[in-house]
Amino acid sequence: MRVLGVDPGSAVTGFGIVEGAPGHFQFITAGTIRTRPGEPMPERLRTIHHGLLDVIGEFAPAAVSLERSFVARNIQSAFRIGEVRAVAMLAAAQRGLPLYEYPPNAVKLAVAAFGHADKAQVKFMVRRTLALPPDFELADDASDALALAVCHLGRARAPRISAAVERPARAVAARGARIRKP
Amino acid sequence: MRVLGVDPGSAVTGFGIVEGAPGHFQFITAGTIRTRPGEPMPERLRTIHHGLLDVIGEFAPAAVSLERSFVARNIQSAFRIGEVRAVAMLAAAQRGLPLYEYPPNAVKLAVAAFGHADKAQVKFMVRRTLALPPDFELADDASDALALAVCHLGRARAPRISAAVERPARAVAARGARIRKP
Repeated sequence: MRVLGVDPGSAVTGFGIVEGAPGHFQFITAGTIRTRPGEPMPERLRTIHHGLLDVIGEFAPAAVSLERSFVARNIQSAFRIGEVRAVAMLAAAQRGLPLYEYPPNAVKLAVAAFGHADKAQVKFMVRRTLALPPDFELADDASDALALAVCHLGRARAPRISAAVERPARAVAARGARIRKP
Repeated sequence: MRVLGVDPGSAVTGFGIVEGAPGHFQFITAGTIRTRPGEPMPERLRTIHHGLLDVIGEFAPAAVSLERSFVARNIQSAFRIGEVRAVAMLAAAQRGLPLYEYPPNAVKLAVAAFGHADKAQVKFMVRRTLALPPDFELADDASDALALAVCHLGRARAPRISAAVERPARAVAARGARIRKP
């Protein structure tokens, strides 16, 4: 199964697509959708929504894996996070793709086998899991998005939507992944 | 100018369209977009987004007036509010409509000339301002949406987006509004 991971952000939204089953992952693509600083939020949301529909159209994932935060710096920050998450949820619904949500700790646990891994550790493990060559540049947000896709694929029986956030993800040991698209 | 007011909610989203200039308002349409209880959020967002695009397509407003909250019960509630607001912002951007945001107090001040008016007072003044007949049923969320449209029209020079929330709205005295569509 091919899964699109999305790490939503109003400035930078990461996306990453991985195909596979538990223990065997294949990197398909990854990248970021960037909005212009100072651009009004409606325009940013349009850019992100449009970008995600493009990625879905080109790579035809079968499911979307989205980070689910339970914390935010403050109420205003939570509004912003909700706004960007919404366009990812909408894009999934518009293309008939099931959406799965995972809290950051479950993603880290699935990729790095350590719920409190930092960004560098997650990126290291994403690179190793997907066998990305050392010279392959991977933005932080794209790495997080790939981790979300791996997190979903790493589950034997993935619970849908809100149920997903209740269960801990199991650690993933990946072998033999190869690169199809740089 | 014709303005679409939107009162976003994950269960019920109110919309209302008013045409006019300060002091002269004409009711065009109002209603609610309802989602099914227990429906997953991506589906709800799709329903709301689709409904708003339908309203924009049918009534061709020139601008969108959206409530901007600064408070929420908690972080989870703020995420939800942001999610629903996002699809309204996205619909406006996709149809090239400028979006204006007003805090609840500015809307109440514009319609009821009283920043802390309750829902019943706002509805009473919306009915009077738009000369709605007594037997015309108006849902709370549709009333709030009409108030948002009136709030935008009531401003002589409306500041865009975030600037809008900084200035107090002036009170509106409406006369001679007539109903075009029930």
